[in-house]
Amino acid sequence: MKVAALDLGSNSFHLVVARIVADSVQLLHRVKQKVRLADGLDGNENLTDEAMQRGLATLEVIAESLKGFEPDSVRIVATHTLRRAKNANRFIKAAKAILPYPIEIISGVEEARLIYSGVAHTHHATGQQLVVDIGGGSTEFIIGSGFTPLLCRSLQMGCVSYNKRFFPQGEIKAKYFDKAITTARQELEIIEDKYTQLGWKSVVGTSGTIKTLFELCRTEDSSNEQQITLKQLKKLKEKCIAAGHVNSLPFEQISEDRRPVFCAGLAVLIAIFKALRIEQMQFSPAALREGVLYDMEEALAESDIRERTAGSLVTRYDIDTHQAQLVLTTCMALISAVAKPWAINNKRLKNMLGWAAMLHEIGLQINSRGVQRHSAYVLQNIDMPGFNQEQQDLLATLVRFHRKRIRLTELPEFEQYDRQDVIKLLCLLRLSVLLNIKRQDNFVPEISITAEHNTLTLNFPKGWLNTKPIINADLECEIAYLAECDIELVIVG
Amino acid sequence: MKVAALDLGSNSFHLVVARIVADSVQLLHRVKQKVRLADGLDGNENLTDEAMQRGLATLEVIAESLKGFEPDSVRIVATHTLRRAKNANRFIKAAKAILPYPIEIISGVEEARLIYSGVAHTHHATGQQLVVDIGGGSTEFIIGSGFTPLLCRSLQMGCVSYNKRFFPQGEIKAKYFDKAITTARQELEIIEDKYTQLGWKSVVGTSGTIKTLFELCRTEDSSNEQQITLKQLKKLKEKCIAAGHVNSLPFEQISEDRRPVFCAGLAVLIAIFKALRIEQMQFSPAALREGVLYDMEEALAESDIRERTAGSLVTRYDIDTHQAQLVLTTCMALISAVAKPWAINNKRLKNMLGWAAMLHEIGLQINSRGVQRHSAYVLQNIDMPGFNQEQQDLLATLVRFHRKRIRLTELPEFEQYDRQDVIKLLCLLRLSVLLNIKRQDNFVPEISITAEHNTLTLNFPKGWLNTKPIINADLECEIAYLAECDIELVIVG
Repeated sequence: MKVAALDLGSNSFHLVVARIVADSVQLLHRVKQKVRLADGLDGNENLTDEAMQRGLATLEVIAESLKGFEPDSVRIVATHTLRRAKNANRFIKAAKAILPYPIEIISGVEEARLIYSGVAHTHHATGQQLVVDIGGGSTEFIIGSGFTPLLCRSLQMGCVSYNKRFFPQGEIKAKYFDKAITTARQELEIIEDKYTQLGWKSVVGTSGTIKTLFELCRTEDSSNEQQITLKQLKKLKEKCIAAGHVNSLPFEQISEDRRPVFCAGLAVLIAIFKALRIEQMQFSPAALREGVLYDMEEALAESDIRERTAGSLVTRYDIDTHQAQLVLTTCMALISAVAKPWAINNKRLKNMLGWAAMLHEIGLQINSRGVQRHSAYVLQNIDMPGFNQEQQDLLATLVRFHRKRIRLTELPEFEQYDRQDVIKLLCLLRLSVLLNIKRQDNFVPEISITAEHNTLTLNFPKGWLNTKPIINADLECEIAYLAECDIELVIVG
Repeated sequence: MKVAALDLGSNSFHLVVARIVADSVQLLHRVKQKVRLADGLDGNENLTDEAMQRGLATLEVIAESLKGFEPDSVRIVATHTLRRAKNANRFIKAAKAILPYPIEIISGVEEARLIYSGVAHTHHATGQQLVVDIGGGSTEFIIGSGFTPLLCRSLQMGCVSYNKRFFPQGEIKAKYFDKAITTARQELEIIEDKYTQLGWKSVVGTSGTIKTLFELCRTEDSSNEQQITLKQLKKLKEKCIAAGHVNSLPFEQISEDRRPVFCAGLAVLIAIFKALRIEQMQFSPAALREGVLYDMEEALAESDIRERTAGSLVTRYDIDTHQAQLVLTTCMALISAVAKPWAINNKRLKNMLGWAAMLHEIGLQINSRGVQRHSAYVLQNIDMPGFNQEQQDLLATLVRFHRKRIRLTELPEFEQYDRQDVIKLLCLLRLSVLLNIKRQDNFVPEISITAEHNTLTLNFPKGWLNTKPIINADLECEIAYLAECDIELVIVG
């Protein structure tokens, strides 16, 4: 089976195509296109038209390589610049017309996790390792052991954004370096103790900036060490300052593309070496896109990381698993009955409904008053490995309205999900919560369920509802609430 | 020492005046004024001008009784209707002109806690007791043992709001009762299992509605029982329906004031008996206002419940106490140095700063990214016994901006706190966090601090800052951030 991963980074877009054979990933080919998207963020955090055009033109080139791929075998992730750009949606809409695959904007922490996965699958290390990935707009830091990331963090500093900020005219001065390094160290201040406390045995760098510096260190230093050291980086810095301008940099092997952001990347790496007191750093060619590939392979093998994430949240937030399980069981019964007539017959949606059922009371830890709002806040803001931001937003939306009035104006517009499907999932979750409000085993009777168009009919066993006047009144209210979403709920029994 | 507690309820305003002698509270006198504020909430949740006038006129009467009281010896709390009214601030501003004491809008849970305190101090019970207080707009449920409330909840149902909703024309019909009871039971549905699971040995009701029903049951029932039972309540309901209209109610002992809201209160109590399967209920004359008094006495005795609350949050949210303590220590050193010149020399503000220091990282449990926002969210939304909503909002505001840019437009307007004082506290918290960013013991040196007008000068030991370039850069940024709040930070050393 052929799969492809595309990473829409702040500096370049990378495509990797691979074959999955017997659960292992064989890389087939790579495409790298410099785009420098981060340069195109204006003062209001909007992506300029020019930058959008640059990005879209690149996607047209890449689209050629993706012809004939099945929808499920392509995953596209976007990182820092599209995370920040307020008008990212405009770009994504235009991109969809070129590439008919969903584009996920992933969080910095999710990016870090995927980078670690890429490194862990391709680079052998014993004991804990620290992985550092300097990108165009953000830098990721991960401490992990084996295949398990232990600490993931993304900081807002990168070679493109720092170049724009500290070396805007191509001039190179010692004081520009000092300012850039100090600013990066201020960013690093909030993570350095946590990271050094957890500690590591080896350090690995990935991506273009570190690759360039790694190669330069090897050429400049005759010792032929396979490591970057702070001493070497300082020497490079002195040479840059002596050159005075990017056009005069005395390093022939740096590509034209890399040249303009070289000093900024160097400054960020020096700051990292100092803040984390790193002695030496190796280089690994695997990075985000490889991580995405391995994640796809894992999903295909059905050992889904998201299942583990949901499970660990249930424990960490001390969720009433008995109640969650009751709601989940009803949800699954309902969706099985209506999936076909309602055309929500896919695993992707069914899984999301299941996780929403498991996690809908996560906000109880904050307060039982307003639990819907608190659950939504938590699910929107915590780190959920394996989920992209939009998936977290979908879960948040479902739990936000699991009872009481549905505020349609507060339902966000999703890129990956159809609004009608979201409303249908919400309807199923609400009914499951309503029917299990007693929190008792075997309380919900055998209900026969039929659906067509926008009508959902629940047939209760004869007489059951007569003995449950409150549930009956709740269902009456629910009929009115769902009618506002154009769903007709019919109760028989 | 004479103290007074005033409760601005949805049905009536109650004043109690007491003397505190040797740590015990002696009630001196009570004033009760019917206001029916809950009636004045319009469809947009605004208090009508008419209702405001009614409330303010009542306050003028009460103001007579409060003449000559010291500011610290009067506590005024407002409950359900002012919690809900969007224009509550207008009322409170006008009220302040009449009564020169701060008015606190307390949360439903805080109201429940105070009611329990009032009952626990005046009514002897062995084992767990359930306390129920039906008010004009909300009903509180508390299970407690001795002086300790174990479960507190406030539901949005009360005799004034239910009267308006279910018996608007004074007509009494069986179906109106049914609708009111079912609606109340739907409200109760979400708490009934939790409450019955925790359980109780005895049930106590408080406030006007239950008092009236208790007295009626005693007169109607010749057995002279000191308890309310469901059977008696049902009999009263039948008599009401037979009467057909409030003007024809056959109960002479009900006051004219109580008559219009009698049926609604009865319906709510019947729903409570059914939902919680209560067999009998005693009556206690103590309620919210007595709870407020005992709370004042406790605060005077310096065994402050808020200290316990903050302490329990530190544990529950797994706060890094070592770091919290470092920040607290620096905060206390700073405020001691500047309290006089900055005119923030009172215990009330100093305490708030201390709690903000202890709790500023409470949001880490959600995510370290955006911790400021998460900490603010948590502090605004959790139950904090002993704190009123505005105090929670102040803590939330302080932690919201403990680092980075201060968004002045997001600082709320406080009733009890001066904006300049809030900014000064924020400034002290920020500096304490900044100086302790290394999270290390003995890192912060001896700093000599002076303040005058809006200028704060920190004198560091000679040479110390030279060895700390990152802290130095952070302080440079802080100078710029504080300048935006019109505070001039001067760093010497």
